This record gives sequence, C-alpha cells and structure tokens, in this order.
Amino acid sequence: MKNILSVLVENKAGILARTAGLFARRGYNIESLAVGETQDATASRMTIVVDGDEAVVGQVEKQLNKLVDVIKVRKLDAGDSTRRELALVKVVADQDSRGAVADIASIMKAEIVDLSASTATVAIADTPERVRHLIELLDPFGIIEMARTGMVALQKGGSGIV
Amino acid sequence: MKNILSVLVENKAGILARTAGLFARRGYNIESLAVGETQDATASRMTIVVDGDEAVVGQVEKQLNKLVDVIKVRKLDAGDSTRRELALVKVVADQDSRGAVADIASIMKAEIVDLSASTATVAIADTPERVRHLIELLDPFGIIEMARTGMVALQKGGSGIV
Repeated sequence: MKNILSVLVENKAGILARTAGLFARRGYNIESLAVGETQDATASRMTIVVDGDEAVVGQVEKQLNKLVDVIKVRKLDAGDSTRRELALVKVVADQDSRGAVADIASIMKAEIVDLSASTATVAIADTPERVRHLIELLDPFGIIEMARTGMVALQKGGSGIV
Repeated sequence: MKNILSVLVENKAGILARTAGLFARRGYNIESLAVGETQDATASRMTIVVDGDEAVVGQVEKQLNKLVDVIKVRKLDAGDSTRRELALVKVVADQDSRGAVADIASIMKAEIVDLSASTATVAIADTPERVRHLIELLDPFGIIEMARTGMVALQKGGSGIV
C-alpha cells in the first residue's frame, strides 16, 4: 500500500539526512521524496511516499514526530488529495519521428521544452499515473535521459497548514 | 553561486540517507534536492542544487563519486540546461478574489487544480524564476499551504545519459 506523508520540518542543516536516515535504519521503503520551501522561510515541506501497511506507516509517523526538527506530520489520502509530479524526458526525435512526439506531447498536455536535430525534451507535470503513461508512450521512440521529481500533494478543499 | 549536480545512483536502500549524510557532515548547503526514477529500473537520478564556489562544488563532486552506489555525477550549467520545478499553492479565493486568482494562473500558464468555496489550489511547473514569480503574485491573496519539489534539470541538446 502506498501512503503519502506530508511532513513540515524546520529548515535546519541536516534535517534531510536525519529523515532519510530514520527510514534507512528502520528499513522503511521510500518510494519517492520531494522537498521544497514553503511560504514560511523557516520551514520546508517533505512529501514522502512510503510503501507499507497501516502498522508500518503508523510507526513511521510516530518516529518522524520524534525528530526534533519535525513540526508536523500529516497522512494524506490519495483520493482526497491533489497529487502532482514532474518529469523531463529527453527522447529521440528526428525528422521522421518529431511530429509523432509532438502529437503525443500535445494530446497528453505535456510540452516540448527543448529541441535538437535528433532529440526533443518533453516536460510533463501531472498525476503520477499520467506521467507514467506519457513515459510509456514515449518509450518506443528511445528515451535518452530522464529527470523526475517525487510526488507533491496537498489535501483537497479549504483546510490548510500541514 | 548555485550549482546543479545531476547524480545517477543505483536504486539501493539507504542511498538517499548516505548522500544527504555526506552533505550534512561536510556542512555543504543543499538548496534543493529532487529524486526520481529513470528509464532504467535499477537507477534513480538525484538533481541537487548546492550553494558554494568552484572549489566547494569540486569537493562535493569528488565525494559523491566515492560513494559506492553513485554511478555518475555531472555538473550542469544553468544556461545550458532545461530547468523545471513544480509547486502546488493553496490560496484564499472566495467569490471576490477567485476571478483575479484565475487570471493570474492563466496568464502565468499555471492551472487551478482544485477549488473550494474559499480556496483555489494552483499548480505550476516552470523555471524556478517563474515559479517564484507566481508565488509572489499569489502571496497577497493569502497562501494557506504550499508543496514544492526541488528543481530537475537536463542538459540542452542531443547529448544523453548523465
């Protein structure tokens, strides 16, 4: 089971190492991790996707809450959250295939952000499912390299602050 | 000076902890970190933005190359790279301000991905500069919460594989 944890942390040196270390020591499997600034310059938000059943995730939450620089941990429900991830995919696109790559990008609401004589770099920001689908569609052309972020998520509706 | 390191790593347990630990121990300042899958299921790519002069970054590269699960490290030049980051921003948007928020989103090529009676969640995937600019434009409405990824980057043009 995939669980989304939204973790608000103080912007202190080494907090990423301490958090990642906690997961590594306990053998929890981080599927993805995204970390970025918030509207508060003293805080960052980590969005962590962790594989495991209810009991494991309960343990992870408890351990995270014990870390001194963790301000708040919230478990997000996938169905009740806006989830997005970002991928840059550089794919073979020459005179023969460029049009087909452009069509796929356009239909999938992705964007070609760089073009060379033999390649195109496609950027997509969408749900993890749609990002995966675009990558499957581009795969037959030949993926040269790829950079992806982990997933970020916010609870749907009006509620706020982790 | 901000430096972009694109690090291809083996998908082994604890690699994130070891990498983050290396930065923490040496006091290198990670500005952002994004980690995600690649087209090769056995490898992940980390994009790390690190603050420091030429000498510091040279040291970081050297230390990263010593980590056993690191396959390759490449320093990317900001001007010669396609750089993108992703932000979800939940902002106050009631009957009076919803139209203005929608206008800003549309002009900035962002998208409203969730709406409640009193809030709107705006998603943007763009250069770090434009993401920052959108956040500044939304700030006066009242930002309720925000989740951002670190930056991902790929070298422009046809070259490939980190």
